[in-house]
Amino acid sequence: MIDSPLPPGSTIGILGGGQLGRMLSLAAAKLGFDVAVLEPEPVSPAGRVSSLELSEVYDDEDALQVFAGICDVVTFEFENVPALALERLKAFGTETAPGPRALAVTQDRVDEKRFLNGVGVETVAFEAIDAAVEIPEALQRLGAPALLKTRREGYDGKGQSWINNGGEAAVAWNRIGRVPSILEAKASFVRELSIIAARGRDGAMVFYPVGQNTHEDGILRRTLAPAPDAEALQPKAEAIARKVLEGLDYVGVMGVELFELPGGRLLVNELAPRVHNTGHWTQDGCACDQFEQHIRAVAGWPLVNPGHYTSVEMENLLGDEVDRWAEIAQEPNARLHLYGKGDARPGRKMGHVNRIRS
Amino acid sequence: MIDSPLPPGSTIGILGGGQLGRMLSLAAAKLGFDVAVLEPEPVSPAGRVSSLELSEVYDDEDALQVFAGICDVVTFEFENVPALALERLKAFGTETAPGPRALAVTQDRVDEKRFLNGVGVETVAFEAIDAAVEIPEALQRLGAPALLKTRREGYDGKGQSWINNGGEAAVAWNRIGRVPSILEAKASFVRELSIIAARGRDGAMVFYPVGQNTHEDGILRRTLAPAPDAEALQPKAEAIARKVLEGLDYVGVMGVELFELPGGRLLVNELAPRVHNTGHWTQDGCACDQFEQHIRAVAGWPLVNPGHYTSVEMENLLGDEVDRWAEIAQEPNARLHLYGKGDARPGRKMGHVNRIRS
Repeated sequence: MIDSPLPPGSTIGILGGGQLGRMLSLAAAKLGFDVAVLEPEPVSPAGRVSSLELSEVYDDEDALQVFAGICDVVTFEFENVPALALERLKAFGTETAPGPRALAVTQDRVDEKRFLNGVGVETVAFEAIDAAVEIPEALQRLGAPALLKTRREGYDGKGQSWINNGGEAAVAWNRIGRVPSILEAKASFVRELSIIAARGRDGAMVFYPVGQNTHEDGILRRTLAPAPDAEALQPKAEAIARKVLEGLDYVGVMGVELFELPGGRLLVNELAPRVHNTGHWTQDGCACDQFEQHIRAVAGWPLVNPGHYTSVEMENLLGDEVDRWAEIAQEPNARLHLYGKGDARPGRKMGHVNRIRS
Repeated sequence: MIDSPLPPGSTIGILGGGQLGRMLSLAAAKLGFDVAVLEPEPVSPAGRVSSLELSEVYDDEDALQVFAGICDVVTFEFENVPALALERLKAFGTETAPGPRALAVTQDRVDEKRFLNGVGVETVAFEAIDAAVEIPEALQRLGAPALLKTRREGYDGKGQSWINNGGEAAVAWNRIGRVPSILEAKASFVRELSIIAARGRDGAMVFYPVGQNTHEDGILRRTLAPAPDAEALQPKAEAIARKVLEGLDYVGVMGVELFELPGGRLLVNELAPRVHNTGHWTQDGCACDQFEQHIRAVAGWPLVNPGHYTSVEMENLLGDEVDRWAEIAQEPNARLHLYGKGDARPGRKMGHVNRIRS
């Protein structure tokens, strides 16, 4: 148990070596921590800026034991690490934040929605699907079209298929890989929003201003924050985030994706038990960004007021869009963040730009 | 010659692995660069956050050749690296920014003041001293008390001795080590100020708001920026910085330490050809801090407007003052920056805190 703040010089472990791990590592360094990264890829964005990198798969028992021995506390940069890995780390004597339960719940779309409804947070109507034959009936209850998603894994629109009628069930089922799934009613939303929230080990919470998100092809394109005309929504979003964080006894930063329905009703679309792409704007819009806030929570430090300075539009640089770096570097109000990835595959998140709006 | 901006993924070399190197490395990572550090100490604050660390002395010919081979451009974090090392790097095909001349001029207090006066910038009156016997006569010309400093090396008040009368010449000369020195007239200053300025490869310059500095025992204690009641001084300070940067054909960030005399006249006290302790406030007061600005200049990127947000008071955490981290972490407006140093020797710079003033 970490019952007092970890002193600077302690080592924070990160499972995952991508851009979120990289930005977490930079934030940890600012507070005087060392960072160790466990990541299967031998060369990773986070590993290059961390004092130690272990290249092993996440469920390698020996690697986890070594990692537990090195790290004073461990966190993760994405929700698809095996929850069992967190259990093993704990067994080896090293706590994680968030904990295994928060990870397990948010790894499964059905469990997540059941949890949300259970703590009084609204979502779209949904049905668990274990076979193609269950789809037509579920579709009737939910109304068409509905969205079939794998219960586990899948991100940035992968592992999803729209179903317009019962006749499409088999094709959709095959397309997502015939795995346990969820069928979700379509949300007739006005816009997509998100709130970045954090909870410390002492239970204190902080909330960032709600952002307005635009997706293209299932991938986040941009976040405008604070979202325009969202003053009335901010307390609602915070109330939702509060229920979620408390319900999970959560420690760390969470991204809560929201649908705004006509009339201002908010549904939760998805939880991300980690720093979140829609929170990147905080790096240049706030005194304390989501990355430092997460490290503070993980290390048992007090959270701080985000200290909102300015409105920001965050744009993701996907694939070869990163080649525009030289042009963006010339924009007077553009703050560029690049992830040190070599291979600019189509759709790959290579960096982002925060444009400061006066 | 770097005649176009270095693309992300390039490697920036830093001579020196201390806290300035660390914060430069973090800034470079943000822009997608890899960083290699050359530093005699095997474990260093900058090395821990950089992709490559070479532990060799700065004038090791083989190390410089290897380093030149790794790095696309090289900069330095402190002014006491041998100017010859920069020459060697250049001979091995790797440019440095700032260049050898700027380093050489600012490494020698007499050369620096001669340069300053040569470009029309005022300093205190001074005399070069090569032997103790020269001191009494110089003291007569300059007036007592006067400050004897080594021409080279020395920082944070080391290598300095006040002389009140000719009789103290021998003692002072011995105390600073009987090396080529400078005797400086005492400046009857109202306060100490500094301006952080940057010049890009294209000759464009940017200037940060002037800060007001307080020293204790020769070590910077705090910087308040923007300095109060300094509106009229800002253009004067910028004009001085402009002459200096252009005169040295400088590339990178420079800290220009100033004395404000009664009536608002400004003298230059000292030049620091690097990011500067009195510029740490920019991390939390500006959109683009001195570290990113320096990396931009070094990499041949366009400089950007600092984008000043808020007033900041920066306080250095010296020696065991860093033990106050837990208390400072609780202050709502304190932004903590720690350097990852283990040994909190008295007076050692362990971190700093930027307090945001509304």
